[in-house]
Amino acid sequence: MDQEDSLKHYNDDTNDIENEGLIDGKEIERYWSERNLSYKGPLLTKRVNTTSQIAIVGSNVCPIESLDYEIIENELFKQDWRSRKKVQIFQYVFLKWAFALLIGLGTGLVGFFNNIAVENIAGFKLMLTTNLMSRQEYFKAFLAYTGCNLGLATAAAALCAFIAPAAAGSGIPEVKAYLNGIDAYAILAPSTLFVKIFGSILGVSAGFVVGKEGPMVHTGACIASLLGQGGSRKYHLTWKWLRYFKNDRDRRDLITCGAAAGVAAAFRAPVGGVLFALEEAASWWRSALLWRTFFTTAVVAIVLRTFIEYCRTGTCGLFGEGGLIMYDVSSATVSYRTADILAVLLLGVIGGIFGSLYNFLVDKVLRTYSIINESGAAFKILLVISISLLTSCCSFGLPWLVGCIKCPSNLSVSCPTIDESGNFKSFQCQSGHYNDLASLFLNTNDDAIRNLFSTSTEKEFRISTLFIFFAAVYCLGIITYGIAIPSGLFIPVILAGACYGRLVGRLFSSISKLDMGLFALLGAASFLGGTMRMTVSLCVILLELTNDLLLLPLVMLVLLVSKTVADCFNKGVYDQIVKLKGLPYMEAHAEPYMKQLVARDVISGPLIIFSGVEKVGTIIHALRMTAHNGFPVIDEPPFSDAPELCGLVLRSHLLVLLKGKNFSRNRVLIGEEILQKFYAFEFSKAGSGKGLKFEDLDIDEDEMEMYIDLHPIINASPYTVVETMSLARAAILFRQLGLRHMCVVPKSQGRPPIVGILTRHDFMPEHVLGLYPHIKPHK
Amino acid sequence: MDQEDSLKHYNDDTNDIENEGLIDGKEIERYWSERNLSYKGPLLTKRVNTTSQIAIVGSNVCPIESLDYEIIENELFKQDWRSRKKVQIFQYVFLKWAFALLIGLGTGLVGFFNNIAVENIAGFKLMLTTNLMSRQEYFKAFLAYTGCNLGLATAAAALCAFIAPAAAGSGIPEVKAYLNGIDAYAILAPSTLFVKIFGSILGVSAGFVVGKEGPMVHTGACIASLLGQGGSRKYHLTWKWLRYFKNDRDRRDLITCGAAAGVAAAFRAPVGGVLFALEEAASWWRSALLWRTFFTTAVVAIVLRTFIEYCRTGTCGLFGEGGLIMYDVSSATVSYRTADILAVLLLGVIGGIFGSLYNFLVDKVLRTYSIINESGAAFKILLVISISLLTSCCSFGLPWLVGCIKCPSNLSVSCPTIDESGNFKSFQCQSGHYNDLASLFLNTNDDAIRNLFSTSTEKEFRISTLFIFFAAVYCLGIITYGIAIPSGLFIPVILAGACYGRLVGRLFSSISKLDMGLFALLGAASFLGGTMRMTVSLCVILLELTNDLLLLPLVMLVLLVSKTVADCFNKGVYDQIVKLKGLPYMEAHAEPYMKQLVARDVISGPLIIFSGVEKVGTIIHALRMTAHNGFPVIDEPPFSDAPELCGLVLRSHLLVLLKGKNFSRNRVLIGEEILQKFYAFEFSKAGSGKGLKFEDLDIDEDEMEMYIDLHPIINASPYTVVETMSLARAAILFRQLGLRHMCVVPKSQGRPPIVGILTRHDFMPEHVLGLYPHIKPHK
Repeated sequence: MDQEDSLKHYNDDTNDIENEGLIDGKEIERYWSERNLSYKGPLLTKRVNTTSQIAIVGSNVCPIESLDYEIIENELFKQDWRSRKKVQIFQYVFLKWAFALLIGLGTGLVGFFNNIAVENIAGFKLMLTTNLMSRQEYFKAFLAYTGCNLGLATAAAALCAFIAPAAAGSGIPEVKAYLNGIDAYAILAPSTLFVKIFGSILGVSAGFVVGKEGPMVHTGACIASLLGQGGSRKYHLTWKWLRYFKNDRDRRDLITCGAAAGVAAAFRAPVGGVLFALEEAASWWRSALLWRTFFTTAVVAIVLRTFIEYCRTGTCGLFGEGGLIMYDVSSATVSYRTADILAVLLLGVIGGIFGSLYNFLVDKVLRTYSIINESGAAFKILLVISISLLTSCCSFGLPWLVGCIKCPSNLSVSCPTIDESGNFKSFQCQSGHYNDLASLFLNTNDDAIRNLFSTSTEKEFRISTLFIFFAAVYCLGIITYGIAIPSGLFIPVILAGACYGRLVGRLFSSISKLDMGLFALLGAASFLGGTMRMTVSLCVILLELTNDLLLLPLVMLVLLVSKTVADCFNKGVYDQIVKLKGLPYMEAHAEPYMKQLVARDVISGPLIIFSGVEKVGTIIHALRMTAHNGFPVIDEPPFSDAPELCGLVLRSHLLVLLKGKNFSRNRVLIGEEILQKFYAFEFSKAGSGKGLKFEDLDIDEDEMEMYIDLHPIINASPYTVVETMSLARAAILFRQLGLRHMCVVPKSQGRPPIVGILTRHDFMPEHVLGLYPHIKPHK
Repeated sequence: MDQEDSLKHYNDDTNDIENEGLIDGKEIERYWSERNLSYKGPLLTKRVNTTSQIAIVGSNVCPIESLDYEIIENELFKQDWRSRKKVQIFQYVFLKWAFALLIGLGTGLVGFFNNIAVENIAGFKLMLTTNLMSRQEYFKAFLAYTGCNLGLATAAAALCAFIAPAAAGSGIPEVKAYLNGIDAYAILAPSTLFVKIFGSILGVSAGFVVGKEGPMVHTGACIASLLGQGGSRKYHLTWKWLRYFKNDRDRRDLITCGAAAGVAAAFRAPVGGVLFALEEAASWWRSALLWRTFFTTAVVAIVLRTFIEYCRTGTCGLFGEGGLIMYDVSSATVSYRTADILAVLLLGVIGGIFGSLYNFLVDKVLRTYSIINESGAAFKILLVISISLLTSCCSFGLPWLVGCIKCPSNLSVSCPTIDESGNFKSFQCQSGHYNDLASLFLNTNDDAIRNLFSTSTEKEFRISTLFIFFAAVYCLGIITYGIAIPSGLFIPVILAGACYGRLVGRLFSSISKLDMGLFALLGAASFLGGTMRMTVSLCVILLELTNDLLLLPLVMLVLLVSKTVADCFNKGVYDQIVKLKGLPYMEAHAEPYMKQLVARDVISGPLIIFSGVEKVGTIIHALRMTAHNGFPVIDEPPFSDAPELCGLVLRSHLLVLLKGKNFSRNRVLIGEEILQKFYAFEFSKAGSGKGLKFEDLDIDEDEMEMYIDLHPIINASPYTVVETMSLARAAILFRQLGLRHMCVVPKSQGRPPIVGILTRHDFMPEHVLGLYPHIKPHK
C-alpha cells in the first residue's frame, strides 16, 4: 500500500495550515468512540477539524478540482484563440475526437500487449511445470513453479515499491475519486503508468489470484491524462498541440474515456466499458461524453479484433486462441422452469452474502496490511513474497488432496490435456486420467474461469474439488488484494463466483436442470453484484464476456437479488476503498443530517478577502500564510457605491498575475489591458504539481508597497448561497455543478457582502459532524 | 395531430395573463424574419414575449414541474408520516419497489397483449388475402385486403380523434418533455393510455408503416403515471396507498421506469430499455434510478419470457413462434476484412444522409398535416383513410411490377410459403415460384424485417425488388407519421434501413463477402443512427434484437459514422418534434449567446411580492390577476430588522392554506401550529389538473381584510443568483438542479431584497432573443 508514502509527498510540498490538525488513526478512533458515534475512520489520514476555527478554505492536502470550468482561464483561452488563430476552433473540436481515438488505440494496444505477455510468460511457466510433472519429477516441478512465481512476484513488487507506490492495488478507486474531483498525488503520473502496465503483467503471470481489469482501467486513465497534459515535461515527451486541454472538464472527460477504454480492453467489452464508466467511474455525465466514450471503446474493440485476427495465424507465441468473446457459453441450451428460478434466487441471496463478506474481509485485511506496508519498501516486498509462496503452495499442494478421475470417453479434446491450458490436467495421474483440481489451480485465472464456465460437462469437476477450490480462491483473493502489486478485483471475484455457482449447480442438480456452465455464470454474477454493486454495466459486461443473450433475464435477476442482499450489510468495494484511503469523495446526494443545518453552520473563519485593487504585500502575505486556493474579492468605495462582492480569484491565477509584475504606484483601475501581456495558456491549468509555485515569485520590498488590479482575473459570477440556505440544498448545488468554492452571502443587509466560503471539505461528514457531534450520522 | 386541441383545453382552464401574447404561426414567422434571424417557429403555438413588460413568472400554459422537490410538501409529508405512523417509512421504500414491479408487470402484459393481438388480426387479414389470391380471385383479394386495412385504420383514427387526441404520434417526444419538466395536457391521462394501447394494435394491424415501440414507451409512461397519481379519481380507480408519491421527483422516477419498460416490452430488450431511458428519455438521472429502471425491465423480460414459453404450446392463436430474440441473425458467420470495413463506412455515410433527410421530410410533413388536423376530427379521419388507401394500393399493387422467381431447391422451409408470414409469398405466381416483393409487402412489418435480416439467402431478393420496396417504405414511413394514429418511428426506420442495407450489400457483393442479413442489420443501424442520434442504447437494442455480438464493432462504427454525418444537417427526430410542438424543452447546456447576458437582462416585471404576514385580500387579488406559480415572500420590520428575502411560496400551497381559513384579525405571527390543522397530503402535489383551483376558494368580504401568516408554508431556502450572474451560469444552475423558480437578488445593498424571479421561459431562446434581437442565435 502506497498511500502513506504519497501522503508524505504531498504534505511535504504544501504548507497547509490544516496540517496542525492531522492526528493519527488511533486518535481518530478514540475521538469518534468518545462521542459514541458509529463513524469508522479512514485507513491513513484524517482531516477532522479539531482546530475548528482554522480556515480550511480551499486547502489542498489533496488538490481538489472543479467541474465548474467556465472560469476565466477558459474564457481567456478562447478569446486568445479566436482573435489570433481563427482556424483553431476547428482544431479544438477535431482534437477532442483525435484524443479519443488515441486513447482507444493506446489502451487497446496495451490491453493486447498485456494479453500476449501474460499468455506467453504464464504459459511457459505452466509448460515447464507440466513437463517436469509428466516425468514424475515432482519436487523439481514444485521448485520450478514456485521459483517462477516468486521471481515474477518479486519483480512486480520491486517495481511497485521503488518506482511508483501509487500503482499498487486496483486503481479503480483512485480513478473514481479523480473523476469526483480529487487529484491524489502521482496517481496519473507516467511512472505509475509504466509500473501499472508491467507490474500487472508480472503479477498476473506470477499466479496470484488477481485480475488485470482494475489495472487496465487505471492504465487507460493514465494514458488519457498524459495526452491531456500534453505529454510529460519530465520525460521530454511534449507536443505543442497537446496542451489545448488545460482545463478540468476537458481533462476529466478524457480520463472518463480512458477508464471506459480500460474495461473495454480488459474484457473485450466495448459497451460494457461505456456503462462501467457511466455507472461506476464518473461522477458527472453529459450526453456528449456518452458519445465520445462510445467512440473510444469502439476503437478499442476494432484494435483488439484486428490483432486477434492477426494472431490466429500463430505469430503471437502461445497466444492465439479465442476471439472477441472471452468465455463463450452460448452453446448451452437455455431453458428454465420455476424450480430453476427458485434455485437461482437462492444462489443470488447466498452470493450476495458472500459478496458483502468479501468486502468486509478486504477492508480488515487492508487495515492490517497498511501497518506492514508503512514500515518500508522491504516489508512491502516481503509481504508480496509470503503471499506468493502461500499461493504457490496452495496451487501445487492442494491438488494432491484429491484423487484422479478417469477421462470421459466422448470428448472432442484430448484428455489428459497436452498444451498449457485446457480442462484435463494430468498432474500426478496416470495416463487416461486427470486431476480436476489441478485443471483449476495449475492454469491462468482466465483459463480456470473458462474451464468453470465450460458447458455440457456436468460431472467434470467433483463437488469436493469445487469446494476446495472455492475456499482457496475466496481466501487467496481477499489476502492478495492490498499487497504491493497492481491487482484487479474482478477476476478473483468472477473466479470464486463461478466456482460457487458450479458448486450450487451440482448440489441442486436434483431440482434444477440448468447447465453447469450457466450456473457458474450466474454464480459469478451473484458475487460481482455482491461486491461491486453495479447493475447494468455488470450485466452488459457478462453478456459480452459470455455471449449468452437468452440467459439475460436470469442474470438480471441474480444481480438484483445479490446487490439488494449485500446492500443491507455494507457499501460496494470501491466506495469502501475510497473511504479507507481518506479521499474526500463527494456523494451525489446530501446526507440526511445536513437538513438540520444551514450553510452558515459549517463555514469556519477567518476569511481572507482582497480588495478589487489590492496591495501586493497583502496578497503575498495571504498566499504565504495560507494554502487557500480561492479568495473572494470585494469592491469598496471609490470603485463602487457600497461594499459589494466582486467575485472570486484563484491562487494559481494570482501567482501568474504577480509573476507578470504589472503593478502600479497608486490604487487605480487598470483593466483588461493587463491581460494583453499574457498568453492565455499561461492562465490555463497546469498538470498536477507543475504550475507556478509561490517560491517562484520574486517580489522585492519596493514592489510590496505597490498595487495590483485584480479585476481582469476575477471570476465575476461565482455561485453563491445565502447563509440561511439549508446545508442539504447547498450540498446539492455544490455537487451537481461540480464546484470547488461556493460563496456564502449574508441574508440581511448592512453587513459585509460575504460571510464565508464553502469548499468540499465543509460537506464531508467528518467536518460537519466534528462541528456538531450531537448529530448522528445517518446510515 | 392533436396538439391544437389540447392547447385549447389548457388555454381554456387557465386564466393566464400570457394568453394576450399568443399569436399565430405566421405572425411568428414574420416576427423572426423581420429581425433577420434564422429562428424557425414551432408548429402550433408560440410564447414569444412580445408584450415584454408582462411578467411570465411561473405562468402555466404548460404546467412546468420542478425536480427541486425538497420543498415544503415533502418535508411536511415526512413529518406527518413519522409522527403519526412510524411503520410507514418502510412502506415508502417498499412501495417504490412494488411500483417498479407493477409497472414492469403492467407494461410486460400490455406488450404481450399487443403482440398477440397484432399477430392474430394481421395474420387473419393476410391469410384471407393469400387464400383469395391462391384461388386467383385477385380483385376480391384486393378488396378484402384494402377493406380490412381501411376498417382497422378508421377505428384507430376514430379512437384517436374522439377519445384522446394526445395519443396520436409516437409519444416519445412527449415523455421526453415530461421528464424534462413539461407536463403537457392529457399526455398521461387514462384515456390516452386506453387509446394508445388499442389504437396502436389497430394501427399496426392495418398495415401502416408504423411501429409499436413509441406507443409502448408512452403506454409504459401512462401506466407509471396512473400508479403514481394513485389511480384515476375520474374513473374511480383509487387506492389509498397509492397516493404516497405526490411529489415531482418520485413521479418522474416512475415515468422513467415506465419508458424503459416500454422499450423493453416492444423490443424484448431489457438492457436496451434502461439505456434508452438514460440516453434519450430522461433529463435528470441518478444511480438509484438506474437500479430501479433495471429492476423494472428485468420484470418485463421475465413476464415476456414466461408468456412466450406458454404460447409455444399453440394456445395463443397465430402467435407462437419466436423466442425472446426478435430477429436472430446469430447463425451468420461474421468475418470481415478491410474491404468490408470500407463498404460499411460508405454505408454509414449514406445512411446518415438518408436519416437526416428523413428527419427533414418528417418535419415538413408534420407542418403540412397540422393544417389538415386543425380542421377537425373528420379531417383527421379522412387523412388517415387516404393514407391507408395509399398504403394498401402500394402493398397490393407494387408486387405486380416484378416477375416471379423460381423457388431455390435447397430450402428447409416450404416454398411458396403456406402460412401467413414467411419468406416466400406466392402472390400471383404459379406453384414452385414466389414473388419476392410480395414477401416484403404482404407481411407484417415485423415479418418483413425478419425476412430482410434473414441470413445465408443472398439471392432471395432481387436488386429491383429491394429498390422498389426501399423507396416505397421510406416515403410511406414519412407520410404516415403525423396522422391521427399512435405510430412509432423505430420500425419504419429499421424497415427502410434494413432494405437499404441489403440493397447496398447486393451492389457491393463483388467487393464485400459479408452476409446479406448482416448488411441489412448494418443498414438498419445506419438509419437509426441517422434519425434517432442515439449511440449506446441503439447498439444494445440492436444487439438484443439480433443476438449477434461478433458484429458489435461494426455496428458501433456504423452508428458513429451515421450519427456524425447526420448531426451536420439537423437535430434528432425526437428533439425536432419536441421543438415543433412548442414544448419549452430545457437543454442540458447553456446556449452560447447566454454568455453575453447576465441574469438581470432577462427578468421581466412587475414582480408580485408578499409579506411574511400578508393581508388575505392582497393574496386573493394576486392569485386572481396572475397565473404565477411562485411568489417571493419578504419579511419586513417588525418581523425582521431590515427587509429580507424570506423565501418562496407556491400558488398551490397558498390555495390550500387559504381554503383552511386560518386568518387572524391582526398582523401577528402564528407559526407552525397552523399546519396541525392540515394533513400533509393536502399540500402534496395533485395529479395534472386535479389540485385545488382558485374558483374553489370562498372568501367573504370580511375575511379579505384579515391577515394570514405565510411562514409555515414558505420554502425558506430558494436557490438564488446575484443579478450580475452570467446568464449561462444561471441557466446551468437552473437546469442541473431541475428548478422551477430561481430568485434573482441585488448585487449591492440598500435595494429591495429581490430583483425578480427567473422561470424556465426566461431561458428559452425565443424569450432571450426576443429581448435582444441583435444577438444572433448560435447554431
